[in-house]
Amino acid sequence: MLRAQIVGTGIDLPARIQASRELEPILGVPEGWIEAHTGVRQRRISDEPMHKMAARAVRQALGEGGPPDLLVNASLTPIQLIPDSSVFILQELGLDGRPSFSVHATCLSFVVGLQVAMSMVHGGLWRRVAVVSAEQGSVCRDFTQPESAALIGDGAGAAIIEPTPEGQSSALLAFDMATWPEGASHTELRGCGTRKHPNDPQTVASDNLFQMNGPSVYKMALRKVPPLIGGLLHRAGLSPSQVDLVVPHQASGPGMRAYRKLGFVTDQIVDILADHGNCISASVPMALALAEQQGRLKRGDTVLLMGTGAGLSVAGALLRW
Amino acid sequence: MLRAQIVGTGIDLPARIQASRELEPILGVPEGWIEAHTGVRQRRISDEPMHKMAARAVRQALGEGGPPDLLVNASLTPIQLIPDSSVFILQELGLDGRPSFSVHATCLSFVVGLQVAMSMVHGGLWRRVAVVSAEQGSVCRDFTQPESAALIGDGAGAAIIEPTPEGQSSALLAFDMATWPEGASHTELRGCGTRKHPNDPQTVASDNLFQMNGPSVYKMALRKVPPLIGGLLHRAGLSPSQVDLVVPHQASGPGMRAYRKLGFVTDQIVDILADHGNCISASVPMALALAEQQGRLKRGDTVLLMGTGAGLSVAGALLRW
Repeated sequence: MLRAQIVGTGIDLPARIQASRELEPILGVPEGWIEAHTGVRQRRISDEPMHKMAARAVRQALGEGGPPDLLVNASLTPIQLIPDSSVFILQELGLDGRPSFSVHATCLSFVVGLQVAMSMVHGGLWRRVAVVSAEQGSVCRDFTQPESAALIGDGAGAAIIEPTPEGQSSALLAFDMATWPEGASHTELRGCGTRKHPNDPQTVASDNLFQMNGPSVYKMALRKVPPLIGGLLHRAGLSPSQVDLVVPHQASGPGMRAYRKLGFVTDQIVDILADHGNCISASVPMALALAEQQGRLKRGDTVLLMGTGAGLSVAGALLRW
Repeated sequence: MLRAQIVGTGIDLPARIQASRELEPILGVPEGWIEAHTGVRQRRISDEPMHKMAARAVRQALGEGGPPDLLVNASLTPIQLIPDSSVFILQELGLDGRPSFSVHATCLSFVVGLQVAMSMVHGGLWRRVAVVSAEQGSVCRDFTQPESAALIGDGAGAAIIEPTPEGQSSALLAFDMATWPEGASHTELRGCGTRKHPNDPQTVASDNLFQMNGPSVYKMALRKVPPLIGGLLHRAGLSPSQVDLVVPHQASGPGMRAYRKLGFVTDQIVDILADHGNCISASVPMALALAEQQGRLKRGDTVLLMGTGAGLSVAGALLRW
């Protein structure tokens, strides 16, 4: 159990809304297909790189408090390979001389980054850490792959982590993660590395775009997610009904509905998929920030952050808020 | 102070050696220029992707002990953008179902990953964590930029982190890092992200290769490194002569010589630059593994891991071994 707490959350939404009915002709699918297949009515599309969204989400999360003493970028889509995106977020925030680095676990980057930040705060290395996930994944949509291209949206979410004050019970109660490389080919962007280097004449355009086999991911997740959630709840001595809020990665319509099969009811689940799509790593902190703005979070609540990501990986963090 | 220790180190070196005299005609520089300017006599070049090197380094570090319960990939050059490289290392190790993720802070990825792993182990989240840095950076050399292309070498290094046993003094005594975005343009690979996407017709080949302004990095590092080292030693109540071993990022010949101006003597410094070049994030764990193999490390020693990276970032970890 790590004694650390989230003291602020923030969200940034690009102004431009792309409705599913606008996207359907681009993807060559019939009217109504996207919402029926993916559950997404609309998504935001950013005309700016991710560090602009990230900086605004961090500023909102910081609120009236001072600057963070460490910035952790927990995002997938980078601005460029070097330096890592945390540097550009730091620059946008005007925080010269503060430390920053990046954590990458695709859609699970925020949940992993939160675990990392809470560990460091618990150990006394840092006292105010900003964890931010921001995605301009729309740039990497493959319009010949309707299902994954229809899911993706842009946005940013952030959280500020501090030590738990004396007399409060906030904590990371339990964390678990598992990675199954047999699912590595289910969700890929094969380019932007040494295997399909951009300068290699054999690299083709689709290598540089998201490729996802949705049904394979869904089938594998159905097997891997329940035991991980069961283990987390068991370690904390809780039943599903004792969790106040479940904040899932907004993977897809079927993915969101699956949480209802695990013993959670609609009121427990934060579901922002229809209006925002799958914002990759930013989905979880965006849902968290919206839940806080709607008054759905209070100190002492039990909160489960949960998701699947490329790998295939599964991770969950059980928090006493 | 975090109670965690390194219980094993490992290194993997590609078989193929590229001597500087072979590289000089490719770079169009006179015989002897590379060693005189960069201090590099030879470097290893990998014909395999980084996960093969990484897995061998981890296996060596694990020794006779059991598998890790978490794998942290702390490398720069990815195999592909999704999934993150940790998944492919896990697959190569046959560790299905163990968790893995990546940390990216360019040349400082290992030092940052070590801090992350030690925090998590100290907090009790994991009990045996493998941190590995492996680089096939040779793929991204720009042969029209002799200075940076001459520096880069391939290789891998790993360390296994466990809680410090009762009665031992091993610890992360102090850690510090600072990032100065004013130096972001001194070391770049501008491609492989949303800014210069590989499918954007305006992206040119050099965008996908390392670009470094060595003199600017060196000048900035000379200003930023000494206060950070001074702060670490001050927090631990130590003078430079009380550090048993300094394991620097093997940035360049001038970069390595600069440590001698900071009050350290040749015997304290692990210098593997001449034979291995700058192996980006792998330089520090490779130097650490070689030092251990040479009998230069024993329990209770004071060890300083230190370096600069793109950002420009500076980081240091002061360990009681």
